[in-house]
Amino acid sequence: MDNRPIGFLDSGVGGLTVVKELMRQLPDEEVVYIGDSRRAPYGPRPSSQIRQFTWELVNFLLSKNVKLIVFACNTATAVAWEEVKKELDIPVLGVILPGASAAIKATNNGHIGIIGTAMTVKSDIYRQKVQLLSPDLQVMSLACPKFVPLVESNESASSVAKKVVYETLKPMVNQVDTLILGCTHYPLLRPIIQNVMGQTVKLIDSGAECVRDISVLLNYFEINRERTTLSKRHQFFTTASSQAFDDIAQSWLNIPIKSRTIRL
Amino acid sequence: MDNRPIGFLDSGVGGLTVVKELMRQLPDEEVVYIGDSRRAPYGPRPSSQIRQFTWELVNFLLSKNVKLIVFACNTATAVAWEEVKKELDIPVLGVILPGASAAIKATNNGHIGIIGTAMTVKSDIYRQKVQLLSPDLQVMSLACPKFVPLVESNESASSVAKKVVYETLKPMVNQVDTLILGCTHYPLLRPIIQNVMGQTVKLIDSGAECVRDISVLLNYFEINRERTTLSKRHQFFTTASSQAFDDIAQSWLNIPIKSRTIRL
Repeated sequence: MDNRPIGFLDSGVGGLTVVKELMRQLPDEEVVYIGDSRRAPYGPRPSSQIRQFTWELVNFLLSKNVKLIVFACNTATAVAWEEVKKELDIPVLGVILPGASAAIKATNNGHIGIIGTAMTVKSDIYRQKVQLLSPDLQVMSLACPKFVPLVESNESASSVAKKVVYETLKPMVNQVDTLILGCTHYPLLRPIIQNVMGQTVKLIDSGAECVRDISVLLNYFEINRERTTLSKRHQFFTTASSQAFDDIAQSWLNIPIKSRTIRL
Repeated sequence: MDNRPIGFLDSGVGGLTVVKELMRQLPDEEVVYIGDSRRAPYGPRPSSQIRQFTWELVNFLLSKNVKLIVFACNTATAVAWEEVKKELDIPVLGVILPGASAAIKATNNGHIGIIGTAMTVKSDIYRQKVQLLSPDLQVMSLACPKFVPLVESNESASSVAKKVVYETLKPMVNQVDTLILGCTHYPLLRPIIQNVMGQTVKLIDSGAECVRDISVLLNYFEINRERTTLSKRHQFFTTASSQAFDDIAQSWLNIPIKSRTIRL
């Protein structure tokens, strides 16, 4: 057993979609979250910079004595997950493999779509992982650079969001039966995305899938938190306005959030 | 990617219930199976002997160049899993933690039953794992020493089996809403067990639960087998009669099996 918290990193608030699923599936675990909203979105940045930022977030989480780190960010996973995982002596989980595996299981007609940031799509990592496991599947990728800014500015339900999602996803409609939400911000736009894609298209939430993996790794490494009377104290950090972070976090997680702004 | 096979060990044929689930969930993986039917059941043996036998099975699987080892045997998991896992540099998975976790999720009234061999029950490991995660749950254990011999002699559907299961499980009936089949042989008796316990009782198949964990670890360690045109060749070994093994294996797995008898 290991009562230390689990660390989550993201370029902003998107990783909260993974935290929400964690709180549902593993309610006894404690969370430390760091969202780099000041420098979001990561997607359009060069990979050397994303790598540097990701290491800053990782080191911050290590300073909080976490037992496991979750890259709750597809862009950071695509660029830096393998490198960080090799360096650390605690488990490090990304969101891409769980999402790719779930999509392979979900598709019936063999046509899988992937939407993500510019960097995630450019890295081609989802296609590679899917086709390595299942070479016969057809994979169609689409960068959606406008989605993260919508979510970070808490406009996920606005009419602007509807218009942007509709126009961006047009080339994907009727092309796939399964769509990977290859960015942890996108589940916040899920109702609109489902509506545009059609109700029969299966949306794969890479972050939610990743929580299943967290559960298995906690078992495998025997680092579950005891379900005791120990009080739990989740900690949320942002590199931008804590008020803006709290607004989004509270409406998404349905619990009171008091985040702290930090400098990296 | 890693195209080497996954190794399974068991005291006999019970681990085939895990293999069946693997073939369903991960049809691209290749299997090497060793069942120690000559020395089954392990349950009544002293732990020093179980430890020694388990190491012999582990070393046999290592000689077959496996990439991951599954203890498809609760008794071996209870006695030797932690030790073997520490020693090897490939992942080693047991069936107890996955089973305990699944039962915690499944129970509604907080009363969980565990049936297993004498050694598994004596080790008290299921109760410990369940109560470490959920101290408030009530756990009731029952050794069923007659079940493994029934399965090993291919009598799982006989009227003798019905009588033995009915008489053995009596003290457990109406006491729990969730029952862990804490021995990989027991799913072969599942219809009878379900009948005796009542249709509303949730039976947890520790072996099937463990396959979910295998899938996650293959992803985590990036050792999935490529879904290529590579032909697949499962290998089955037994320490007793290969004919007897094949009879049970074929009826359970629904594929032709040609096992080989080996000496350890």
